[in-house]
Amino acid sequence: MERYDIAIIGTGPAGLSAAITATIRNKKVLLLGSKQLSAKLSKAHEIQNYLGFPAVKGGDLAAAFRKHIEQMGIEITEKRVSAVYAMGDFFSIQAGEDMIEATAVILATGVVQGKPLPGEEDLLGRGVSYCATCDAPLYRGKTAAVVGYSPREEAEAAFLSEVCSKVLYFPTYKDEPTLPVSVQVIRDKVTGIGQENGKRLVKTEKQDYAVDGVFVLRDAVSPGQLVPGLGVDGSHVAVNRKMETSIPGCFACGDIAGAPYQYIKAAGEGNVAALSAVSYIDQLKRR
Amino acid sequence: MERYDIAIIGTGPAGLSAAITATIRNKKVLLLGSKQLSAKLSKAHEIQNYLGFPAVKGGDLAAAFRKHIEQMGIEITEKRVSAVYAMGDFFSIQAGEDMIEATAVILATGVVQGKPLPGEEDLLGRGVSYCATCDAPLYRGKTAAVVGYSPREEAEAAFLSEVCSKVLYFPTYKDEPTLPVSVQVIRDKVTGIGQENGKRLVKTEKQDYAVDGVFVLRDAVSPGQLVPGLGVDGSHVAVNRKMETSIPGCFACGDIAGAPYQYIKAAGEGNVAALSAVSYIDQLKRR
Repeated sequence: MERYDIAIIGTGPAGLSAAITATIRNKKVLLLGSKQLSAKLSKAHEIQNYLGFPAVKGGDLAAAFRKHIEQMGIEITEKRVSAVYAMGDFFSIQAGEDMIEATAVILATGVVQGKPLPGEEDLLGRGVSYCATCDAPLYRGKTAAVVGYSPREEAEAAFLSEVCSKVLYFPTYKDEPTLPVSVQVIRDKVTGIGQENGKRLVKTEKQDYAVDGVFVLRDAVSPGQLVPGLGVDGSHVAVNRKMETSIPGCFACGDIAGAPYQYIKAAGEGNVAALSAVSYIDQLKRR
Repeated sequence: MERYDIAIIGTGPAGLSAAITATIRNKKVLLLGSKQLSAKLSKAHEIQNYLGFPAVKGGDLAAAFRKHIEQMGIEITEKRVSAVYAMGDFFSIQAGEDMIEATAVILATGVVQGKPLPGEEDLLGRGVSYCATCDAPLYRGKTAAVVGYSPREEAEAAFLSEVCSKVLYFPTYKDEPTLPVSVQVIRDKVTGIGQENGKRLVKTEKQDYAVDGVFVLRDAVSPGQLVPGLGVDGSHVAVNRKMETSIPGCFACGDIAGAPYQYIKAAGEGNVAALSAVSYIDQLKRR
């Protein structure tokens, strides 16, 4: 299997900055994330403190970032990463249906917005999943619900509808979902997840919906779920000034590495994480 | 005396970024440094990894930074800071001939390039000075030498020539100095500083020059000299992830806070230092 030098997970300012610096340092980089870059950034009304871009619209700053990676020939691989496993001197990354190997990993997935739903963590792995691509086969011919936190999750729901007998989609956002007609969109506000008589329940303000499996799909999963064994500090990854985590070869930067949640801080940390990863790889090779 | 909320020392990317964020947070900011911004930045041939500016010339990036602070109405006060004293709940800053007060201080003076001259540190305060403006009165009617590390030091040498009976100027750079005719420019390479018969000696590859006082003027002084009592880590200021130093209310960012020496890292750290300083000030007020 082809092994990358550095897998960078996330295409916000931290991930992009890391990708640029790692590429300049001649490393074989895999940049995983959304080609839409950071939704938070693109939608920002005005950013005043990204030095060099006075009073810039989020969309314009995102366009400048996109131009930068395109000029350097850096491509984005759009795969949802559901887990990263430390294997000793490399990492195994579950990305969609693929397993990818990389010598070092940089986590730049942003911070998890909001709290888990009541019941979500209790039932995780027992009828609650964060990855439709991974777990869809478990619900072949059965019923599934998707709680979708952004329009990006619609593709996952559409995929599930090809496998499951019935799919309910609960968008938490206002935009009208674009989904196959077989997917039932329900606008009730989800209040929690439960179980009853061997079924899972999506609880809403109006009623409970019984299904076989519930997929809770957010832009980011919590770091401890993403990388088993990773040292965390609340909802953040614990890092030092070199952006090293508790796992050798695994680095973190941007919002996932802690407040303040600022674009320029994220970009700066991405740079540091990349240089630390380069140094880690070079030391491994000298052993 | 007027007291600033935050004094920011240094006008490289770290200091500018800190000034922008502190200003947005409605703090009364004093930005001290060169209006030419960072000489290192302006002279950089091409910078590839400041996210948002692909393959940018140093001068163009500096121009973008300048435009940013100008649009926000942030002014630079061109004074040489020779010492910062922690006074408890505020700082007293020796800037040129003035003493300035600020509740919090952000150090963004860059890293000291090169080692001290042999003998320099031994004789510091005993005939060797880093501040012509401060110590010129000690050498009224006497002879002085200036070892100048950049053309910016020429103004200090010119000032000394108004006070001293004789001034020797040893430029370490190639540009031709612009100085009063009374200042004698000597192109010998300085190898160290010594003393003999109550005089100080500027030692060069060719000969020794005896004077009463020697001024060693670099763009930056080492952090421990700048802020007495400050915790250092080699030639850097020791900081944590919040850019806090060992002295409450004193923050550091950019090259002075450690490698890697990268523009985007410096800008990111400036942002963090500013937000930490804002938080520090707000907590003081709530006491």
